[in-house]
Amino acid sequence: MRLYSLPLKASRFCTIANLLVCKNHTAMANATPNKTAHPFERSRLESLLFGRFFYAPAFDIYGGVKGLYDFGPPGSSLQSNIIAEWRKHFIVQEHMLELDTAIITPAPVFETSGHVARFADWMVKDVETGEVLRADHLVKNVLQDRLDRDRLARDPAFQPKKEDDKKKKKAEKDKPKAEPVKLPDEVVAEYENILAKLDNYGGPELGELCQKHKITNPDTDNKVTEPKMFNLMFKTSIGPAGDVSGYLRPETAQGHFLNFNRLLAFNNGTVPFASAQIGRSFRNEISPRAGLLRVREFTMAEIEHFVDPEDKSHATFHEVRDVELDLLDRHVQESGSTKVARLSVGAAVDQGIIANETLGYFLARIYLFLTKIGINPKRLRFRQHMANEMAHYATDCWDAEIENSYGWTECVGCADRAAYDLTVHSEKTGHPLTVKQQLAEPIVTEREVAVPNKRLFGKTLGRSTPVVTGLLDAMDDAQLLKLKGELAQGAATIVSNDGQEFKLTPDLLTIERRTFRQTTREFTPNVIEPSFGLGRILYCLLEHSFWSREQDMDRGVLSLPALVAPTKVLIVPLSTKKELSPLVAEITAKLRKAGVFSRVDDSSQSIGKRYARNDMLGTPFGITVDFASVQNRTVTLRERDTTVQLIGPVDDVIATVTELVDDTIDWTEACKRLSIYDGVQAVE
Amino acid sequence: MRLYSLPLKASRFCTIANLLVCKNHTAMANATPNKTAHPFERSRLESLLFGRFFYAPAFDIYGGVKGLYDFGPPGSSLQSNIIAEWRKHFIVQEHMLELDTAIITPAPVFETSGHVARFADWMVKDVETGEVLRADHLVKNVLQDRLDRDRLARDPAFQPKKEDDKKKKKAEKDKPKAEPVKLPDEVVAEYENILAKLDNYGGPELGELCQKHKITNPDTDNKVTEPKMFNLMFKTSIGPAGDVSGYLRPETAQGHFLNFNRLLAFNNGTVPFASAQIGRSFRNEISPRAGLLRVREFTMAEIEHFVDPEDKSHATFHEVRDVELDLLDRHVQESGSTKVARLSVGAAVDQGIIANETLGYFLARIYLFLTKIGINPKRLRFRQHMANEMAHYATDCWDAEIENSYGWTECVGCADRAAYDLTVHSEKTGHPLTVKQQLAEPIVTEREVAVPNKRLFGKTLGRSTPVVTGLLDAMDDAQLLKLKGELAQGAATIVSNDGQEFKLTPDLLTIERRTFRQTTREFTPNVIEPSFGLGRILYCLLEHSFWSREQDMDRGVLSLPALVAPTKVLIVPLSTKKELSPLVAEITAKLRKAGVFSRVDDSSQSIGKRYARNDMLGTPFGITVDFASVQNRTVTLRERDTTVQLIGPVDDVIATVTELVDDTIDWTEACKRLSIYDGVQAVE
Repeated sequence: MRLYSLPLKASRFCTIANLLVCKNHTAMANATPNKTAHPFERSRLESLLFGRFFYAPAFDIYGGVKGLYDFGPPGSSLQSNIIAEWRKHFIVQEHMLELDTAIITPAPVFETSGHVARFADWMVKDVETGEVLRADHLVKNVLQDRLDRDRLARDPAFQPKKEDDKKKKKAEKDKPKAEPVKLPDEVVAEYENILAKLDNYGGPELGELCQKHKITNPDTDNKVTEPKMFNLMFKTSIGPAGDVSGYLRPETAQGHFLNFNRLLAFNNGTVPFASAQIGRSFRNEISPRAGLLRVREFTMAEIEHFVDPEDKSHATFHEVRDVELDLLDRHVQESGSTKVARLSVGAAVDQGIIANETLGYFLARIYLFLTKIGINPKRLRFRQHMANEMAHYATDCWDAEIENSYGWTECVGCADRAAYDLTVHSEKTGHPLTVKQQLAEPIVTEREVAVPNKRLFGKTLGRSTPVVTGLLDAMDDAQLLKLKGELAQGAATIVSNDGQEFKLTPDLLTIERRTFRQTTREFTPNVIEPSFGLGRILYCLLEHSFWSREQDMDRGVLSLPALVAPTKVLIVPLSTKKELSPLVAEITAKLRKAGVFSRVDDSSQSIGKRYARNDMLGTPFGITVDFASVQNRTVTLRERDTTVQLIGPVDDVIATVTELVDDTIDWTEACKRLSIYDGVQAVE
Repeated sequence: MRLYSLPLKASRFCTIANLLVCKNHTAMANATPNKTAHPFERSRLESLLFGRFFYAPAFDIYGGVKGLYDFGPPGSSLQSNIIAEWRKHFIVQEHMLELDTAIITPAPVFETSGHVARFADWMVKDVETGEVLRADHLVKNVLQDRLDRDRLARDPAFQPKKEDDKKKKKAEKDKPKAEPVKLPDEVVAEYENILAKLDNYGGPELGELCQKHKITNPDTDNKVTEPKMFNLMFKTSIGPAGDVSGYLRPETAQGHFLNFNRLLAFNNGTVPFASAQIGRSFRNEISPRAGLLRVREFTMAEIEHFVDPEDKSHATFHEVRDVELDLLDRHVQESGSTKVARLSVGAAVDQGIIANETLGYFLARIYLFLTKIGINPKRLRFRQHMANEMAHYATDCWDAEIENSYGWTECVGCADRAAYDLTVHSEKTGHPLTVKQQLAEPIVTEREVAVPNKRLFGKTLGRSTPVVTGLLDAMDDAQLLKLKGELAQGAATIVSNDGQEFKLTPDLLTIERRTFRQTTREFTPNVIEPSFGLGRILYCLLEHSFWSREQDMDRGVLSLPALVAPTKVLIVPLSTKKELSPLVAEITAKLRKAGVFSRVDDSSQSIGKRYARNDMLGTPFGITVDFASVQNRTVTLRERDTTVQLIGPVDDVIATVTELVDDTIDWTEACKRLSIYDGVQAVE
């Protein structure tokens, strides 16, 4: 047996040669680990993430600033891999036009876009301490806490749902003395109704709720002030004179809209097309508290898909028509429920639940992307915004929400911004931001027109000419035909808006029927905007990937898919002796050539410890090299989740692990290609 | 002949089948294009770059803000490719620890680092208009203009050097009436001396220069004020209370230093190691004017290489020892010259011109990176900072400067920041930022110690015990031996600093010689920091890559290396007819599988126009598909710079172009593998 978990001394004497090789243990190889042996505990995950420097609170040696985080080596790498896959899934596959635009933005841009007036949250202050709280979060936390206590009062043995359990624990930690308190049934119903509709309330309503339900700051029990708007943009000033004010962008979208004409030209003047941008944005959150889920600085990925407002079909909608999603539409929420309906995107568009094909197409593509990188599809739903909740620019909006220990969190917004942004910027600046489309079939129309006699018209009417021309141009067919009849009688009189009369005679003009051909059409495109909060997705992915070994709660594992794992293969020489180096170098080089990112861990720690550390880093595969490897040119291949090891010739193992990383085969298939090691699972 | 440059109608009738294939024109295929037929004109390059949306001034429909630019699709792609190669060249190859840290930084961090007090430029104001100018740029532009006019006066036929020519043109454009004005010889010498040392002057000296040489605002001829410091950091305020002030980082470096302990732990507690970060930084430039070279927001890539201050050797220095660089050291500049010396890095380190191996190693690696992505090595030099010019944190600094139409521009700084940053942050916060190193050989020392008699010492001395202990601890060997002698005599008296006397007797203590083993050593590492301005490098690369076809000045070409070109292969179906689609799809798929990024241009424009557009986008290779391709399964392969075309079977062409893109073969080799098309070059 390969006793990897033995202390250093013992394991140094283990070689592949003296281990029993057994070919017929596929059942064991496929044994799935018990990932739910230990309930999820956020503190354990966080201690792994901070300890291994996935990320950590920024500036902590200076006391820290809430809502700012730094990504360390594994976190940066995980983020890069998610971004690389995003770029492949969206930009490359759909030929989007990538942008990288300025973060500092002059104030007039956000004045026009509406962000200066409306990109704000409602805040209240503790009347005694002055502590600032976000009004909707305050209402939510207090009412949820009361509901939790009520449940406990009704049934001391009551097992709240997982999500509630987390909240309960957090609430209990904040207020250790929380006691069961039973509420009247109608109050429970009222609270539940408020919570389901919470995102729909504005500042005044939130103030009323605080009054009516005696909501106070839970940390002090003090009353809070009336909600006031707090703009979420960071302000700065540009240039040495200090007179040009600007904001850090709270989204990348305006950079797309302001470049619309350049993008349109790049796309040969036609829609639909999409631009895409991955970059940093900033929001001055009132009191960020939920780790990476609510931060003041974050990396986002945004797509602006420009379409003809009269045709929001999508050319490849058929490819995603059958993708099934959990949908939570606005009517269900407005009725006070959070029950999702599972529907194919095709059916949802057909039934008008999702407004159009393009919106449906992106919801499906978002679903495919998130589940591909490792988000649990059972903890992913699409929630439609309610009327009051919608951003000022949106006409319809669906959020991809991912369940995690803080609840359901918006991770991707998918909004139909209609023509809002292009229209307001165009009106403000006087630059047209439109598409001039050549019509496939010219539109041919006939109508009456007044044709002046060039020689006499101006001469006769003198300074009244423009007024009369204007009046004639404004006439419709019926009016012109009436005029024609009057002229045929010898003369006609037309009257201006201010009562001036003009006499017209048949020598001055004729009324003729003419044919018009319209060959182009000009319109302001609509915009469908999928907008991804990459930090939130990354955090939810880490939660979904985290579990602890059944036999040891402290041995955390991150079951990240190879696609996004920071390192794909760990190469572990069993000894630090030089004899192993050439084979280690050979394997490294061959993996690099195959495009597989590997790392060598040649530290002197026990092999068990080295693997345990890499389980925490999410490394999916390990290749162990020992003295027998050098003699026989065989190495073992370890799978992270099952800890099962296979053995085979060096090149077979490299070929197999390459296919595993490329996801062209799965572990079951790998078990067929290589031999299974007996005993490994039992002892590790 | 394949008449690709003919208008659409004619080219539609061209097929490979009716063209003469000629195998023996390798001479023609290797014909190098005349890239210097037209002198470089910046306005032509800029019109290409803005027109094809490599990048463009941001917010221009709002009137724009100086120093802010947006990158469009080809610019974003070029930037991504440069970043990808940077990551490979530095992070992957040297196992650096990647970071992604917060941009918004609380003020105390930059107060400690010295940026609040000293990260500033000197500005002057026009006394009449209030226009703000950077003092050093003003002096430089005015004196350079006077020198240029003097040269013209001395020799009307004088052809200034290329670099000067550009400046002259710009100056002439700004001041159309500039006339030749001869200066006394000693004034010319004085001006030249000032310009060579310009970076060495502080604010007061710049003010004196303005006074002495009557330097006024060239746009108005008004006097300017005394230089004042202007801090280059953008300020903002964090959180709803408005009482936490912060800055946008002007460099990514502090994010590395503040995470030092986490990085050290990740590296198992040992140095040397390097962290690396690619991200946005911000500098509120006084009056940004030189396009991408001086901007207020930019992407930078920074490495912080932490080393033992007592050992700045580098383990792989031998790999770069023979790399030759153009060096401009501080002594040469201080003598008023700008003459470079060509030296190998090894020789420069041996001679003490470059301070240490690690600094030399990075200079060589920077050189290799820049030339690999396409920077012209003849226009690249390494200039050492003069004493006054150095940033406040640096002890030595070399800039990689790249020559372009604005002059020589710093694109990479490589500074030895010594222990400055870690020391100041540690002192300010009280968190040690040090390395505790296990010594390979313990340091064994012997010395005298006072050993108290535990039972009697405290009992006898009572409340004086700590004072006496302190006095004994402070004694050196000689003092202790003297005390030992006195005790041997029966008693001794020791005196505290404030004159108190203590009597010691042999029963209270003995003086013994003891052996001490020091097994660890604690030190603050030094930092070598290569810091890359990616936008500046990108702009210089575009200038170095740009030329115009000899036969047509308006046909610009960007000779970007395949490594960084936005698109590697353009696939051009000769007709929009459906018959070609399967082969186009097959070639696309095969190139994707080979890892080669291609694009199809199936627009209805003439093939000549399509190639011309892609020459401007820097696409190095083109594959043309026509009806003969479908019949014979042969396609042509076009090289951008020579416009030479080769022909061969589909799979051979794909294999060849893959190797060309991967840089495992060159075009000469490709010409040997495939047949040459006759006539193509002549007609295109």
